[in-house]
Amino acid sequence: MLIVMHHSANEQEIEQVKQAVKDMGLQAEPIPGSERTAIGVLGNRGYVDDATIRNLPGVREVIHVSKPYKLVSRDFHPQATVVKVGGVAVGDGQPPVMMAGPCSIESELQMMESAKVVKQAGANILRGGAFKPRTGPHSFQGLGVDGLKLLRQAGDEVGMPVVTEVMRIGQLDDVCRYADVLQIGARNMQNFDLLKEVGKLSHPVLLKRGMSATIEEFLAAAEYIVAEGNDQVILCERGIRTFEKATRNTLDLSVVPLVRSMSHLPIIVDPSHATGIRDLVPVMSKAAMVAGAHGLMVEVHHDPAKALCDGAQSLNGPEFSRLMAELQQLQSCLMSAENSA
Amino acid sequence: MLIVMHHSANEQEIEQVKQAVKDMGLQAEPIPGSERTAIGVLGNRGYVDDATIRNLPGVREVIHVSKPYKLVSRDFHPQATVVKVGGVAVGDGQPPVMMAGPCSIESELQMMESAKVVKQAGANILRGGAFKPRTGPHSFQGLGVDGLKLLRQAGDEVGMPVVTEVMRIGQLDDVCRYADVLQIGARNMQNFDLLKEVGKLSHPVLLKRGMSATIEEFLAAAEYIVAEGNDQVILCERGIRTFEKATRNTLDLSVVPLVRSMSHLPIIVDPSHATGIRDLVPVMSKAAMVAGAHGLMVEVHHDPAKALCDGAQSLNGPEFSRLMAELQQLQSCLMSAENSA
Amino acid sequence: MLIVMHHSANEQEIEQVKQAVKDMGLQAEPIPGSERTAIGVLGNRGYVDDATIRNLPGVREVIHVSKPYKLVSRDFHPQATVVKVGGVAVGDGQPPVMMAGPCSIESELQMMESAKVVKQAGANILRGGAFKPRTGPHSFQGLGVDGLKLLRQAGDEVGMPVVTEVMRIGQLDDVCRYADVLQIGARNMQNFDLLKEVGKLSHPVLLKRGMSATIEEFLAAAEYIVAEGNDQVILCERGIRTFEKATRNTLDLSVVPLVRSMSHLPIIVDPSHATGIRDLVPVMSKAAMVAGAHGLMVEVHHDPAKALCDGAQSLNGPEFSRLMAELQQLQSCLMSAENSA
Amino acid sequence: MLIVMHHSANEQEIEQVKQAVKDMGLQAEPIPGSERTAIGVLGNRGYVDDATIRNLPGVREVIHVSKPYKLVSRDFHPQATVVKVGGVAVGDGQPPVMMAGPCSIESELQMMESAKVVKQAGANILRGGAFKPRTGPHSFQGLGVDGLKLLRQAGDEVGMPVVTEVMRIGQLDDVCRYADVLQIGARNMQNFDLLKEVGKLSHPVLLKRGMSATIEEFLAAAEYIVAEGNDQVILCERGIRTFEKATRNTLDLSVVPLVRSMSHLPIIVDPSHATGIRDLVPVMSKAAMVAGAHGLMVEVHHDPAKALCDGAQSLNGPEFSRLMAELQQLQSCLMSAENSA
Repeated sequence: MLIVMHHSANEQEIEQVKQAVKDMGLQAEPIPGSERTAIGVLGNRGYVDDATIRNLPGVREVIHVSKPYKLVSRDFHPQATVVKVGGVAVGDGQPPVMMAGPCSIESELQMMESAKVVKQAGANILRGGAFKPRTGPHSFQGLGVDGLKLLRQAGDEVGMPVVTEVMRIGQLDDVCRYADVLQIGARNMQNFDLLKEVGKLSHPVLLKRGMSATIEEFLAAAEYIVAEGNDQVILCERGIRTFEKATRNTLDLSVVPLVRSMSHLPIIVDPSHATGIRDLVPVMSKAAMVAGAHGLMVEVHHDPAKALCDGAQSLNGPEFSRLMAELQQLQSCLMSAENSA
Repeated sequence: MLIVMHHSANEQEIEQVKQAVKDMGLQAEPIPGSERTAIGVLGNRGYVDDATIRNLPGVREVIHVSKPYKLVSRDFHPQATVVKVGGVAVGDGQPPVMMAGPCSIESELQMMESAKVVKQAGANILRGGAFKPRTGPHSFQGLGVDGLKLLRQAGDEVGMPVVTEVMRIGQLDDVCRYADVLQIGARNMQNFDLLKEVGKLSHPVLLKRGMSATIEEFLAAAEYIVAEGNDQVILCERGIRTFEKATRNTLDLSVVPLVRSMSHLPIIVDPSHATGIRDLVPVMSKAAMVAGAHGLMVEVHHDPAKALCDGAQSLNGPEFSRLMAELQQLQSCLMSAENSA
Repeated sequence: MLIVMHHSANEQEIEQVKQAVKDMGLQAEPIPGSERTAIGVLGNRGYVDDATIRNLPGVREVIHVSKPYKLVSRDFHPQATVVKVGGVAVGDGQPPVMMAGPCSIESELQMMESAKVVKQAGANILRGGAFKPRTGPHSFQGLGVDGLKLLRQAGDEVGMPVVTEVMRIGQLDDVCRYADVLQIGARNMQNFDLLKEVGKLSHPVLLKRGMSATIEEFLAAAEYIVAEGNDQVILCERGIRTFEKATRNTLDLSVVPLVRSMSHLPIIVDPSHATGIRDLVPVMSKAAMVAGAHGLMVEVHHDPAKALCDGAQSLNGPEFSRLMAELQQLQSCLMSAENSA
Repeated sequence: MLIVMHHSANEQEIEQVKQAVKDMGLQAEPIPGSERTAIGVLGNRGYVDDATIRNLPGVREVIHVSKPYKLVSRDFHPQATVVKVGGVAVGDGQPPVMMAGPCSIESELQMMESAKVVKQAGANILRGGAFKPRTGPHSFQGLGVDGLKLLRQAGDEVGMPVVTEVMRIGQLDDVCRYADVLQIGARNMQNFDLLKEVGKLSHPVLLKRGMSATIEEFLAAAEYIVAEGNDQVILCERGIRTFEKATRNTLDLSVVPLVRSMSHLPIIVDPSHATGIRDLVPVMSKAAMVAGAHGLMVEVHHDPAKALCDGAQSLNGPEFSRLMAELQQLQSCLMSAENSA
């Protein structure tokens, strides 16, 4: 931590700050400059709360050097984490994972048809929402536990592990019984109690970035899970909120290489929620792969025009098959390029 | 809902859209223009999901006219809602409510001292956090139920109703036992399960705006609570996330008159979290009152330099007393102005 | 400047950074911590370009302590600047300035009527746009020099100094001939050539904040003007761009007390452009005054329903008179409060 | 345009709105709904200014259907525009254009060395800044006309057309004499006078997206240029401003396929300014190509550690050569995929 004093701060103010640092059990190291004094804080082993210092007289600014996460950082843990989901491995050195399926589980027919479609096209994890977070209470809210059962049944039928969103602690027992991966949605990225609870479990977790979360907050949220003992965390970029309204959100692809350098956890991309526009899903899926994503999560519905949720961003079967073929081609191209390098 | 067709959309595409609207049980009314056709959708009694229409061939854009909320809108419910908290009334025509107290409950001494300070200065609801949402897992997380008891005890001692944050459904029993108002924090504004649960209770709810929530989403979140039967909802603006980093968040005061015109629910302002800077709290408190806020929520600590949480934005006793005196003066000035108008 | 090294940075990398700092003619002061080394940079007299250091091997982050402005900072220049516009003084200790008038100058009749309206209500500077920046080329672009003449004529008639926007260097001669204050619009806040040119003149300048400008960038833009010799700069907050679409922009009132503490220049608020909604203008005007604004800039049109530009956010005569009366009452209330304190 | 009335709007208010529409020379078509009336506005041939209608009594909202641009829209002009720069063609069906070179022109040696580096690697347009927009006045501001001459000389030497930024109208003569493409920077995207002037010239224009510009505003800015007669406009995405601070800006790659569907103008991507981080430039360059960009603009310096501007985001020669080789491989892969489709 670096404490920057005002140009006009006097000796007494500087002394008071030094004392406050010592009261925290840390060392204070003044760095006199030509225009002002700064005070380096040494001895801390992690993030320091600056509450008792920030507003002392003469203090202009407090600058944090340590981050609010450590267990998930590559700086302290250089080796990549590979998350195992059934027989599927997600992370560095693994083929990209393809999670696909409908936004929400609507019926046995729909779930089964959609599962066959994504399986045939080559996806390896099946998605489907049983508990749906909707902006307003008057929209379809999901089938609940009945949906979980349909998802499990469809996954078993086609031989794919399944991922679904858990919205609250009380649902964890049910979701753990039927699902292989627990998804924490963007709106719950800072539902810290939920994060802690999934941290105590052994199920892999898919953690989506909050719609206005910084990368630092995203990694700090993952830290909550890992700190409880569960390091099987897959991060997921799903678009952030900006002033632009032509797309549902703004897909932030730079986060992929950045997170890969800052953390050892795998990161995938959800182009469906990020753009909200079906026509953009294939092209942004390919861009995400090239940006280094460890996989994708794509909404597929066997009949999008009849979907109860997010039909406008869902691919149908043929569209998804075409995308998978293109991704395969792109992937083999990227790999041959890497080998020749 | 208005469906705008592409300039070059043909008859067949227009027919297909009309059919899709009819399949939803609604009427389709084409509005031919000089450059393109638009199709008005009639007959809906609320928000319409556009999923099955947005991506039909020839459709350029779907524009929503209905909002995802209705019960909380002043358009359909012109009379103001006054929320009752113990003997305190919050809303149109009532004196502004002053909620004050420490960010987090730390000890009996701290809670009691802070309660006396805010009581003496004239606050009428006591706040204090027992369950704390913190960005990283390595920060102080609150005293939990022990904190709730200390809060209740302090409130009883000084004779004030108390408000505290509930972070998950499992905490509701405890929080309802000890608190008079249930606070839903910004990070949980779209924790829809939690919203539904508090909607089934009779306790008043203080709903904070999410840090990147639009006004429409804010009101839709309140709709979740009211739709379950609990209309005792107080809205709270606490700053939104923008590109500006000089303040913790950006206080959006325009939301106060806007929400007052759009909804019958009362709205208060939290200048402490909005700015994150102690020196800005008094001035922005006064600005909020002038903007029409039905009250304020202010962080006060009897000894901010020792606070475990948010000390840098907390007022101490004398500062809060001075603010209360200034607010009183401002308030009587505003009222005399109103009377003379 | 503080250079933060990676946890795993080695001696050689640290030496390379120290050498790079010395090559810039500055001192490097290593601060070894328990988890990583940081290197303080000393000896600079202002902002340091970090380009040659930021990406050296082993460097995690470069943190700036100096700001890209100095002449406009209160830290180095504590005494408030009072800007003189004809007989009107703007700044600390002065009565709030009221700039009012139509968005764009449309005709002699409109300009004269509007001037009378604002004069009678008590405004002291007349505004009117002759050169209009419009999002699309198919909207009304202003009357140009003919408009300037009408503005001057109206100002002379009612005895008020006038302010108008200058959009490019080539217009400066004309605008200086007819106007008392040169307005730099939000879209030109970083038109650095224009800033430098007005910096060489003696006319006071009204500098509007860019719609996505940080406070630091805002003050750095003012620094461009002052660095050329013209310290007669009035800053103006006019709303920033956020995700919220219910208002035209988001009025950021915290910027008023913040800029007052960071800079010695006066700052006013434009609630008309900030909100874009007529009904919000009076209430946000009052909130701005309470937040400490040195004045306001308000759009007034004698017949808003016929305005060629921004009619929806313009007050008419009676509305503006009422606002002025309310502001006067508020102001005397604030002053009596201050005196009694 | 669609005018949405309040739920409680009465007959008289509806009549008044209809009259106001007729006064604008347009037709008003009421669309009675079950909960409110909307009024369709017909007969307009382009964007309609809503100023006189938006705030009439009973009006809740005005929704625009027409866009503030038309000449640049693909809706009205389906055929792609291919921009010619010397022998280089930019647009649909052309090989991607590679613009590369230093941020700012610093010396003959630097410009010549950098030109050779990018030429050898396979770039086809040379970039270099002679007039530099810098946030603060105390940073290097560029060599001006001397820089232009060095750029021209280097371009001639290696046989490449050159692109450079023009910041004001007064520079146009000089820039046109020495440069082949006129770059309008992000800060000047809404410098409408400058847009109009370059619209009167025959030089191709590279228009960068403003840092908080919506896609609609971006296209409306291009409309300014095309409306004056110059349709040789290349759009450029260079990152937008969001709350994220880990990157200089947030690269918005979805804008590429969106603009390609909305407009017939070519669009390229500048990953250097978008990310501000050298290590991200290659990976985001490749992602941009896959997203469908018609080309790239990349900062290359023969010795970035000594660059006077943006060294931290500049590639050196070997890095750029490697990137070009990877892009070539990627491109041939994409093309063979397209051919086999």
